[in-house]
Amino acid sequence: MPTLFLSGSNIKGLLDMSEVIGAVEEAFRESSREEVQMPAKSYLTLERGDFRAMPASVPGAAGVKWVNVHPRNPSLGLPTVMATIILNDPLTGYPLSIMDATEMTAYRTGATAAIASKYLARPGAQTLGIVGAGRQAYTQIMAHAELFDLKAIRVFDPAKAAVTKLIEHFPQYPIKEASLEEAVASDILCTVTPARSPVVRREWVLPGTHINAIGADAAGKEELEPPVLKEAMVVVDDIRQATTSGEINVPIAGGLFTIDDIHATLAEVISGQRPGRESEETITVFDSTGIAIEDIAVARMIYEKAKGSPDYLSLKFVE
Amino acid sequence: MPTLFLSGSNIKGLLDMSEVIGAVEEAFRESSREEVQMPAKSYLTLERGDFRAMPASVPGAAGVKWVNVHPRNPSLGLPTVMATIILNDPLTGYPLSIMDATEMTAYRTGATAAIASKYLARPGAQTLGIVGAGRQAYTQIMAHAELFDLKAIRVFDPAKAAVTKLIEHFPQYPIKEASLEEAVASDILCTVTPARSPVVRREWVLPGTHINAIGADAAGKEELEPPVLKEAMVVVDDIRQATTSGEINVPIAGGLFTIDDIHATLAEVISGQRPGRESEETITVFDSTGIAIEDIAVARMIYEKAKGSPDYLSLKFVE
Repeated sequence: MPTLFLSGSNIKGLLDMSEVIGAVEEAFRESSREEVQMPAKSYLTLERGDFRAMPASVPGAAGVKWVNVHPRNPSLGLPTVMATIILNDPLTGYPLSIMDATEMTAYRTGATAAIASKYLARPGAQTLGIVGAGRQAYTQIMAHAELFDLKAIRVFDPAKAAVTKLIEHFPQYPIKEASLEEAVASDILCTVTPARSPVVRREWVLPGTHINAIGADAAGKEELEPPVLKEAMVVVDDIRQATTSGEINVPIAGGLFTIDDIHATLAEVISGQRPGRESEETITVFDSTGIAIEDIAVARMIYEKAKGSPDYLSLKFVE
Repeated sequence: MPTLFLSGSNIKGLLDMSEVIGAVEEAFRESSREEVQMPAKSYLTLERGDFRAMPASVPGAAGVKWVNVHPRNPSLGLPTVMATIILNDPLTGYPLSIMDATEMTAYRTGATAAIASKYLARPGAQTLGIVGAGRQAYTQIMAHAELFDLKAIRVFDPAKAAVTKLIEHFPQYPIKEASLEEAVASDILCTVTPARSPVVRREWVLPGTHINAIGADAAGKEELEPPVLKEAMVVVDDIRQATTSGEINVPIAGGLFTIDDIHATLAEVISGQRPGRESEETITVFDSTGIAIEDIAVARMIYEKAKGSPDYLSLKFVE
């Protein structure tokens, strides 16, 4: 049996945002039907960075994503985050495919946020605010543009060059540089910063806003003033991860938010097990930490798409 | 930067038992100097089998072994256990190599047991008993033959065909089929069975025996009658893993053994931080569960050996 190797450039040729959105939404539905398994991430912490092992199974696929975060990498010409997925047959354990999952990780993060916006934002939402113009901003915009008819995209980043680069990358979209307050005052707001103290003030958030809080993915990180969370309907991707490393981790540690203040998981909202927003005025927050079922579901889709093509490297790996 | 892919047949051409023993012993010395990191294994449990993510770092290398255990696989013509290692540069996280680690896993398990025998068995030990003639028996014999001048190897397995196959595989060694009692009555005894109740009785174990208890690697598994452990000097590879899934896990759960009854870790004995056997009469037991630093240290050695050869598949994987 051959194992399919998919390099970064192979993956770029296979990634399509609307398909990634479909694969991720399906994984959340499978999760709501208890058809997935996802043990806790395991962290390997070294001097220059860390690694996370993210195992999961979804129907028809099992595997692990192994992903690093090395903040000094850009000065060496390497990405901060690089990820590899090993995708296995759940019935035998055979390694079906090994994939560069670096780009897939950014795609699935954007896809998950856009799905959260689909279920939580006001119907007819048409303005998107982006705080932070780094790598994650690109896939947030791509994914939201798939699901919303956006009339304005407002981007704030103190690094003006990053904003210019982002705007130039998407000539097809109505993107403009904005102040922080202007970006926040949007129907849908995505915060994609590495902030360790709140950048979004309560007073700037309009009634009815949906916020995707993406940046916080480790203890000590937060992007929103805790009163935003306290007043909002808060939906998380995974309760365990959100409380220890998501947007709510700092307020929980400080006693300003509790686990009982979480309204639902995204899987519960998507499946209808829990209701979404209550009114046009509700502020909704999706606390995204990134979970392994998203990765393994996207890998499953990519593998099915790639299988059988002569263009990819396939070899008898296990002998 | 290229990533080196090493398939099972590549690895077979690179594996040398004496080099594996050297790599594993070095990893235990590095562990005793606190130069390694090894978070807990993460288990993904499915209907037909399970997977384990085993992350670790040793000096100069970091990575994860992803390994399955699917007991029904032999009926499908596949190995029960298949393993893949992703080896990364600890300074940047870059994936240096992806390896079929199935054969490496058997080698490092044999190597670790032989190292334990080197430090714990009586000087001049010359008889080796093997209980269980499956896959793991082969590397136990190979590794012990590297470090000991063996005058007799006594193999017991209720499956006679497995014993015959093992004997025929090693014409160069003095191997004979033996009864269970005869195999146990050896200077060094290796138990490599999937037993869930003790197969080795206290009364059969002679004074001065060193036992490598290899088989137990999950809760509920045990190979030795608890009085053997209670009377012996017990050395473990990893205290956390041994107490939850090693030979001592069942006696601990039953209150017949406690964590305080553990004499030392293998790293402590190798480094001289804790003494080894006290006398010719001491019974010593090494409780082996298999730990990730062994795997990553062997992968580091294999990668250094393979690097630069034109025979292996090297490609720009991360782009």
